[in-house]
Amino acid sequence: MDDAQLSLLRAMLAMGSAAREASGSLREAAAEDRTGALLSMARRVREHSEAILAANEQDLENAADLPAPMRDRLTLDPARIEAMAIAVEQVAAVPDPVGRQLAGWTRPNGLEITRVSVPIGVIAMIYEARPNVTADAAALSIRSGNAVLLRCGSECLATSLAIHGALAEGLVEAGLPEAAVQMVRTADRAAVGMILEGLNGAVDLVIPRGGKGLVERVQREARVAVLGHADGVNHVYVHAAANPEKARAIVLNAKMRRVSVCGAAETLLIDRSVAATLLPAIAADLLAAGCALRGDEAARAITPMEAATEADWSSEYLAPVLAVRVVDGLDAAIEHLGRYGSGHTDAIVTEDPDAARVFVDKVDSAIVLINASTQFADGGEFGFGGEIGIATGRLHARGPVGAEQLTTYKYVVRGTGQTRP
Amino acid sequence: MDDAQLSLLRAMLAMGSAAREASGSLREAAAEDRTGALLSMARRVREHSEAILAANEQDLENAADLPAPMRDRLTLDPARIEAMAIAVEQVAAVPDPVGRQLAGWTRPNGLEITRVSVPIGVIAMIYEARPNVTADAAALSIRSGNAVLLRCGSECLATSLAIHGALAEGLVEAGLPEAAVQMVRTADRAAVGMILEGLNGAVDLVIPRGGKGLVERVQREARVAVLGHADGVNHVYVHAAANPEKARAIVLNAKMRRVSVCGAAETLLIDRSVAATLLPAIAADLLAAGCALRGDEAARAITPMEAATEADWSSEYLAPVLAVRVVDGLDAAIEHLGRYGSGHTDAIVTEDPDAARVFVDKVDSAIVLINASTQFADGGEFGFGGEIGIATGRLHARGPVGAEQLTTYKYVVRGTGQTRP
Repeated sequence: MDDAQLSLLRAMLAMGSAAREASGSLREAAAEDRTGALLSMARRVREHSEAILAANEQDLENAADLPAPMRDRLTLDPARIEAMAIAVEQVAAVPDPVGRQLAGWTRPNGLEITRVSVPIGVIAMIYEARPNVTADAAALSIRSGNAVLLRCGSECLATSLAIHGALAEGLVEAGLPEAAVQMVRTADRAAVGMILEGLNGAVDLVIPRGGKGLVERVQREARVAVLGHADGVNHVYVHAAANPEKARAIVLNAKMRRVSVCGAAETLLIDRSVAATLLPAIAADLLAAGCALRGDEAARAITPMEAATEADWSSEYLAPVLAVRVVDGLDAAIEHLGRYGSGHTDAIVTEDPDAARVFVDKVDSAIVLINASTQFADGGEFGFGGEIGIATGRLHARGPVGAEQLTTYKYVVRGTGQTRP
Repeated sequence: MDDAQLSLLRAMLAMGSAAREASGSLREAAAEDRTGALLSMARRVREHSEAILAANEQDLENAADLPAPMRDRLTLDPARIEAMAIAVEQVAAVPDPVGRQLAGWTRPNGLEITRVSVPIGVIAMIYEARPNVTADAAALSIRSGNAVLLRCGSECLATSLAIHGALAEGLVEAGLPEAAVQMVRTADRAAVGMILEGLNGAVDLVIPRGGKGLVERVQREARVAVLGHADGVNHVYVHAAANPEKARAIVLNAKMRRVSVCGAAETLLIDRSVAATLLPAIAADLLAAGCALRGDEAARAITPMEAATEADWSSEYLAPVLAVRVVDGLDAAIEHLGRYGSGHTDAIVTEDPDAARVFVDKVDSAIVLINASTQFADGGEFGFGGEIGIATGRLHARGPVGAEQLTTYKYVVRGTGQTRP
């Protein structure tokens, strides 16, 4: 390890231990104090909006050859900064998730056991060119009593530092420790490796948010717990008993409302018994909206479209492309999901409650919907006031990760002198 | 990779995919079917008790130079086999944790969202010379709808295979897939590495149960989620307002009831204001029970004992040794815990409700007790019908891990055609 690396490591370890110390104060802070800090943070973001825009311009200049969708995510304007401040205020309005009694019971020996929610501790958020994540992640961490280390992609570092400066002022104003929200100030990728090693026990949880490369690196290297999301290969299954109008509206919305979000549908499964009558209208809606279709033989016999290959069934396009397959009934649809699905978000369109029940029981995705668009896979739409991402692992939290999902619990056992026989 | 390794890898991957398939059947099985399987498993363990004892004798012969405490854990007799069967029946009596509605709410747009418990999927249990874990882990996995891969230490392989044979018969008798509980049939340590790599995505969770070496290897190598426990450096703090009799009984029990369990106390913190009056009696109890004491200067000034070194404050003795420190009040005790504690189980003895409240709020251990022995850190004592271990990580589950803690959740969203604006 050369001198530069050593000095980076020292700086990162110092951030880690400052975060650990701040997490103690945050845990003990009253819910009102956390709320007050969030409101101050939102106000400071608004106040610093010019500085944030100037930093953003600098980032945009440096990132001249960024692909258009990433460039769009990176670009801020006054409306987007206002939206960022409002998002922080929405998190402030969410009930404080710390200190809730989750369960309680009394044992035959008189011990009173309660399970109480507590913050996780120190969260490290590793993300790419989305400056708004800086504010979102900070807000959800503070709401849930956690300290957070933010590490953004180099493309949005200047913007994120400007946002972070505003957030830090809000924290200090509210009397919470500034180290509760810290930002890695270098683009050196070695910093990510250090975070993934856990900074000498200072990091309790890493949340990656970004492309496949980032998520895979985190899953490969992390020596600490990770809450992340892999692919969202999401399905809409139009069942034999689907209401035709609902099916059209849901498929169109699930695919085309926004094609780049993880809740976007990627495959349409349509029941053979209704394919001939429903697929033409569904396909026409999609084509009119600019969506390319790739179908199996049966689908192409009904509506002309490109032929799907085996790879299409497991593709997360994040683009205006939809794979289309005709299936022989509910069981075949569920089998397809089991084989190709990624366990993120899947929907059935049906008026048959029995079919809906079977689908819900057998499909083990984080979010299973009946007669609603997969694009509802979102913390805001779930009423969480915001989200730090969608979890597709099986432990701790699945689906949208809001403030409540950033807590864990401890047991409090009240006795009167009991000893164990 | 040589031929033997390749063929082991093939066998392990086959186990993994059989487990994945079995987990689907288990998830969809009715609670009564899981209960029926557990009762059959218990019965078969009883029926096979002679074969299990014969296998155990074989293991004991091969392990002639095992240290006495490990040898004791390895040794079975008819009473211990009966206890094993009863433990399985106790798990059968626990309410089925799958399919519970954990939360539910309706959004302004009419979407009805529910959070429903589901099994985790496939659990891999890696343990050492404790044959009873074979039955405990299988029982808790079946209760919670999970398939399980069992990998025991070479010292108890014959015994565990005999127990596993009985359990498998019970599963088949009850109509559940035999592959729901599988056992690695070789002592080759490479099998552990393969499990930690996740068997091609077939393992959702690894639970290590054993010594420090095992737990550290798992934490270092695992590419999948781990639910484990590190040290249990547990404290009893005798506060200024402690009831003397309760303090004596709790300290003695917390340390000496069983010294080798993870809930055993390792450090006594005693308030300076009561040290002179209480410590002599507490120390006399402990010495009479065969416990060695290692104290700080203040403690030694009151009662003669060996001098404690800095290392004692963070030692998990798992032996009849107790570190003793005199502290200046509640805050000093909490500070000591923050610095040296391991976040497992800590107790305060006090009649002062304010002191108890502060202790509970500020001590962030998985289990915090007031006026009760730390030896209650146990799934059975919590009413979980059994436990697969005590979790000291911060995610998913903390404290005793019973059947409920081996579930996760999914969201079910019911709509009437909603699309997202």
